[in-house]
Amino acid sequence: MDSIAFRPIGIIHSPHKRSEEIPIQPVYAGGIQGRAELFPEYADGLQDLNGFSHVYLIYHFHKTTTSRLIVTPFLDDSPRGVFATRAPCRPNAIGLSLVRLLRIEGCTLHVEDIDILDDTPLLDIKPYVARFDSRADARCGWTEEVDEATASKRGLRQHGRACGDA
Amino acid sequence: MDSIAFRPIGIIHSPHKRSEEIPIQPVYAGGIQGRAELFPEYADGLQDLNGFSHVYLIYHFHKTTTSRLIVTPFLDDSPRGVFATRAPCRPNAIGLSLVRLLRIEGCTLHVEDIDILDDTPLLDIKPYVARFDSRADARCGWTEEVDEATASKRGLRQHGRACGDA
Repeated sequence: MDSIAFRPIGIIHSPHKRSEEIPIQPVYAGGIQGRAELFPEYADGLQDLNGFSHVYLIYHFHKTTTSRLIVTPFLDDSPRGVFATRAPCRPNAIGLSLVRLLRIEGCTLHVEDIDILDDTPLLDIKPYVARFDSRADARCGWTEEVDEATASKRGLRQHGRACGDA
Repeated sequence: MDSIAFRPIGIIHSPHKRSEEIPIQPVYAGGIQGRAELFPEYADGLQDLNGFSHVYLIYHFHKTTTSRLIVTPFLDDSPRGVFATRAPCRPNAIGLSLVRLLRIEGCTLHVEDIDILDDTPLLDIKPYVARFDSRADARCGWTEEVDEATASKRGLRQHGRACGDA
């Protein structure tokens, strides 16, 4: 099928300069701050966003050069189908992170709990709407076998394993 | 900046044949079933996904031909910045829906609560992991002013307003 072209709408900045050191998810990047810098031509689209405490950032895993269907995720040691993980080495290198929105200044979103590499191209911003996006009753597959202490430790990437794409 | 090309990994099928009749979010598409048909070459990536009750589908709003920075969302009557809404007419026509995964048969994901147009190109599948993706304390901006009865009614698109892109 034909490919679909998207164009960055901004750039994400964070303290994470090397992909192998990024926390694997915003919840394990507690307190780490960064910025999503929207290009000025899109500024009007930010109206009303400051009422939201959390936003989804959708972005391009621009440093990911390989795609694999079976990956060993950071949270455990078993190979898993890539669609059952959030690993970056996916057929389409699209990232999704739910971050806390601290404030908006001009075209800059100041965000917290950021797990995204510095200089990442931003593709979209969507508000987190609890009534759409929260599922209290969710079953979470293999991730439920990982206890919280292990998840917190591995989530911070202290154990130093890279994801093949790093 | 350079554009980024993605390639569909499958096609989403649903009973929604016309964009102006689609529920605005999975939560308002209660019980409506559909299928995400992954192309066979990606089948291995589905391993381990059947343990998850909910998945994110990321897709291309392929029928959306316009992009607007200010939109009037379905849930109320005030113009809002597009990034404070989930409207399809965004700078990058990327859709994100959280759907219930009923079962997987071969390359087919049977899903429920689908708010996606039939024949939509699928770009990615990610597991919903409550510990990553649920935010109990979220503030949800203008959407909090919409009471649940209004949201349910408008969410079903019974009032017939289209989004400019339809």
